[in-house]
Amino acid sequence: MRKEFLGISNLISLNHIGIAVYSLEEAIARYSRMFDCEVLHSEINEEQQTAEAMIKCGGVQIQFLAPTSETSPIAKFLDKRSQGVQQIAFDVEDLDLACDQARGLGIRVLYPESKYGTAGSKINFLHPQDCNGVLIELVELQKPNFSNG
Amino acid sequence: MRKEFLGISNLISLNHIGIAVYSLEEAIARYSRMFDCEVLHSEINEEQQTAEAMIKCGGVQIQFLAPTSETSPIAKFLDKRSQGVQQIAFDVEDLDLACDQARGLGIRVLYPESKYGTAGSKINFLHPQDCNGVLIELVELQKPNFSNG
Repeated sequence: MRKEFLGISNLISLNHIGIAVYSLEEAIARYSRMFDCEVLHSEINEEQQTAEAMIKCGGVQIQFLAPTSETSPIAKFLDKRSQGVQQIAFDVEDLDLACDQARGLGIRVLYPESKYGTAGSKINFLHPQDCNGVLIELVELQKPNFSNG
Repeated sequence: MRKEFLGISNLISLNHIGIAVYSLEEAIARYSRMFDCEVLHSEINEEQQTAEAMIKCGGVQIQFLAPTSETSPIAKFLDKRSQGVQQIAFDVEDLDLACDQARGLGIRVLYPESKYGTAGSKINFLHPQDCNGVLIELVELQKPNFSNG
């Protein structure tokens, strides 16, 4: 019989692969020339101090992340490792539950409370040292609001 | 009117996200505990000097790559950057065509001829310096052989 699963039980799907870049415009232009991508969305995330653009490429979302300040986590990543994959993000049904389940396994969750992510989502991160060097973002998408319907 | 697209025209979908790890067993155990993954496949790739395991996690394939020798590209990656995302791989319809299209844009392709990848596939790589720091693997899956059917 299968042992009871005690990890993150409500993973839905890959949301995106996040790539730290020096310039959003340069990265979008390069990937669009290479792969015939579609630009889905772009915004400034003040809290994370990043400029973000989501493109669709081979059926998957790729998020380019550029720093908007020297204290941005992306600026630190670029200083240390230069451009490259900085995170992979999975959608979860319930972010607070997923974070509690991760903590229950002894996996460090970066923030005590969820942060504001792209397009109204709630996000948090699993510590890369607990995930074989991979910064894993967990995303709870904004639910449609039908309360006024 | 849309400008003619001159890049890689036959991209199908994401094949996998490749993560360089010190130990396949440790990585599989860790991710399975965390995410309720399914192990799909594992093999030794003599040519690339890697031990590889493919797991399915949140609907996406994650490939763990561990070196089988000190001269393996994965050993070099681990020495330089330690564990983490080492590549993202896309399926293409026709690998030789895709590589020619990449070369036509001035993007460096790592090998003059395709190499042997996981599960009978043909693979080649786009140079990370031409892809914003991302090593992009292109994969042509093994076609089913109906010739004896």
